[in-house]
Amino acid sequence: MSTVRVFAKDLEAFVIEAMRRYGIHEDDAQLSAQILVTTDTWGVHTHGTRQLRPLLKNFPIGRLNADAKPEMIREGAAWTLLDGHHGVPFVTAHHAMKLAIEKAKICGIGYTGVIHTSHFGAAGYYATMAAEQGMVGIASCNADPQMTVPGGRGKVLGTNPIAYAVPAGSNKPVFLDIATSAAAANKIIRAKLLGQSIPEGWLVNADGEPTTDPSGFPETGALMPMAAHKGYGFALLVEVLAGAMTGAAMTKEQPSWVTGVAGNPPGPANQGQMFIAIDTSAMLPPERFGERMDWLLDYIHDAPKAKGSERIYLPGEIEWEKREHALEHGMILPPDVVESLQGLAGDVGIETLPFETITDIESE
Amino acid sequence: MSTVRVFAKDLEAFVIEAMRRYGIHEDDAQLSAQILVTTDTWGVHTHGTRQLRPLLKNFPIGRLNADAKPEMIREGAAWTLLDGHHGVPFVTAHHAMKLAIEKAKICGIGYTGVIHTSHFGAAGYYATMAAEQGMVGIASCNADPQMTVPGGRGKVLGTNPIAYAVPAGSNKPVFLDIATSAAAANKIIRAKLLGQSIPEGWLVNADGEPTTDPSGFPETGALMPMAAHKGYGFALLVEVLAGAMTGAAMTKEQPSWVTGVAGNPPGPANQGQMFIAIDTSAMLPPERFGERMDWLLDYIHDAPKAKGSERIYLPGEIEWEKREHALEHGMILPPDVVESLQGLAGDVGIETLPFETITDIESE
Repeated sequence: MSTVRVFAKDLEAFVIEAMRRYGIHEDDAQLSAQILVTTDTWGVHTHGTRQLRPLLKNFPIGRLNADAKPEMIREGAAWTLLDGHHGVPFVTAHHAMKLAIEKAKICGIGYTGVIHTSHFGAAGYYATMAAEQGMVGIASCNADPQMTVPGGRGKVLGTNPIAYAVPAGSNKPVFLDIATSAAAANKIIRAKLLGQSIPEGWLVNADGEPTTDPSGFPETGALMPMAAHKGYGFALLVEVLAGAMTGAAMTKEQPSWVTGVAGNPPGPANQGQMFIAIDTSAMLPPERFGERMDWLLDYIHDAPKAKGSERIYLPGEIEWEKREHALEHGMILPPDVVESLQGLAGDVGIETLPFETITDIESE
Repeated sequence: MSTVRVFAKDLEAFVIEAMRRYGIHEDDAQLSAQILVTTDTWGVHTHGTRQLRPLLKNFPIGRLNADAKPEMIREGAAWTLLDGHHGVPFVTAHHAMKLAIEKAKICGIGYTGVIHTSHFGAAGYYATMAAEQGMVGIASCNADPQMTVPGGRGKVLGTNPIAYAVPAGSNKPVFLDIATSAAAANKIIRAKLLGQSIPEGWLVNADGEPTTDPSGFPETGALMPMAAHKGYGFALLVEVLAGAMTGAAMTKEQPSWVTGVAGNPPGPANQGQMFIAIDTSAMLPPERFGERMDWLLDYIHDAPKAKGSERIYLPGEIEWEKREHALEHGMILPPDVVESLQGLAGDVGIETLPFETITDIESE
C-alpha cells in the first residue's frame, strides 16, 4: 500500500493557500490552518484538514461569508453572547474562547455562547487554548440530528461533542474530546464500506432496535448515545447550553454544515457553541494547583496495570505523543484525508501537494 | 412478601427526630430531612434516607461536627471557596449551591468549591435548587476510589458523580444524576448476594480483566468507567474541578464517608464538591428560554418511538412522576431502606417508625 507523509508546516501552507483562493483573509486562513493541522498532528484526522474541503464549499454559495466578523451581541460580568454572522467558524470559535478566558481572568469563570456559526473542527483545540492560559477549558456545540434517544427511533439529537482541557503542572494538559454518541458516524460508515459488522451498542436500525449491521446507515437508523441514558442526558445538556440558552438552531432545525445533504433544512447552519474557561489559580495559590495535578497524574500513571497492559494513558496523552512525533518526523495521512486534500487542490487549482509518497507502510 | 409504605411528611419527621438525638440542630435536621426524603420520593432510594444511619455514625466519633458551620475562605466575582469544617454535609452543600446561585444572579454564572465535607446524598438535589431559580445547576463531587481506569486494575478513581438540572418552561426541570462508572457498586453487590452474574462492562476482576462474576467485589476488582475512556475522562475532570482546584483530598487520600471501612486512610472525609449555576435569562429574554425549552422537550417527546416503546422519557421525568405519586399515595420503601431506618431507630431509641405494613406487594 502506498500513502503519503506530510510535515505540519507544509500542510499549513497548503491550507492557507487553498483558503486564500476561496477568498478567506490571510489572518483567518493562518489561524484556521493552525487549528486544523494541530488537530491532524494529534492523530484526530476525522476533524483536521479533511474537513476543509466540505467546509469551504459553503462560501461560494453564501452559507458562509469570508468577510464577516464575529460580533458581541450581549455580555455580562462573566459571559458573552457572540453572533458569528456566518464567518469563518474556526476564527469565530477562537475568538469566543479568548473572550471566555478574558472573563475568567476577571471573574474566575467565563462563559461564551455563539450563534450563527458552523463546524469548528475539533472542540478540543479550543479547550487547550484555555489550558495554555492556566485555565480549565470546556468547549461544546450542538449539531444536526444523528443520534436516537432511549425509547425512540430515528435521528433525534446531534452527537453534541464535549471537550475539556486542564493545565497540568509539569505535564502536558490533560484533554478529552468526545462525542456523546457511543461511536462516531464515520466508524460505522467505514465498517459498512468494508462489509463488516459493528459492535452492539453503536447503532439502532429503522425500527429503533439495536443492530450490528451498518448497511442501512446513514440513510436509516441512528447512532446510539454513549452509556445509554447517560449519553442522552449529556447530549441534552449540550443542546441546552449551546442551543436553547444562546438562540441558535436546535435539532431538526439545524441544517448540516455539509452542503447538499439530503433533507437538510434550507439556509446556512446556525450552530450553537459554548466555551467555558475556569481559572485554576483562583481558589488555591497558582503553584499549588500544578503540584496537585502532578501528584494526581503520577498517581494514575503509577496505578497497578491490568494483565497484559504496560501503561496507563491520561486523556490526551496519546494525542500529545502523536503530535511530538508528527512535528519531528511528519505525519502519515489516512487515505480519506489524502483524497479530500487532493480534491480540494483540484477545486482551487493548486497543482502540487506537499506530500512525500511512501510505499509499504500501514497508515497510522 | 411484606413491606412498608410511608408518607413523606412522616418520614421527614422521623429523620428530624433521629438527627436531633444525634445532636444536630433543628434547622439543619429539617433541611437534611427535606433533602433525603425528596430523594426517596424520586425513587432514588440508594441516596435517600438509607444513607442517614451510616452518615450519623460519623458524629459521635468526631469525623463530623454538629456545631460546625460552613465558612467562606476565599471568593471572587463569580466564585466562592467554602470550608465545610466537617459540619452536616447536606447543609454545607445546600449553602454552597445558594452561593453559586447568588454569584450567577450577578455574573451570569457562579461556581462554588467546597472542602472538608462529606457525603451530600444525591447530587441531583442541589442541581434542582438552581433550576427552581431559573438557572442551570450542576453539582458534582469526588470520592474515595472504587473505579479502575483503562489499562489499570484495582480502584483508582471515585465514581465521581455529575448531576445537572435545567428549568424547562412549562415542564418540570430536566434533570440527570449519574455516576461516571458504568454501574453503581450497590447493583453489583446486590447481584453478588443473589448469586447472579452481571452484564459485561461493569466490573474488572483482580487482574483488571472484565468479568461478569461479581463474587470478588468489593474486596477485589473495581468498577469500570461508563463508556470506557469517556467515563474515565469525565471522572478525572470531576477530580480536577472538585478536588485539585479546591484543595480537598484526592483519590487514595480520600477516606470513605462510611465509618470503619477497611483500608480507610485515617481521619475524617475531606471530600471536594463543586456547584455551578448558570443564569438562563442572561443571553435571551427570560420568556424565550422557557419557550425554547418547551419546543425542545415537545420535539423529543414527539419523536418516533422504537418498536415496542410507547413513550420517550426526558431525563428526570420518571423521578418527577414517582415523586408526584409518592406525595399522594405514600412510598413503598425497598427492604434495605427499611432495614437501615429500623437500625437507626434502634440506635437512637425511637420505638415506632411511621410505617404502614402492607403485604403481597412488589417493592417499587
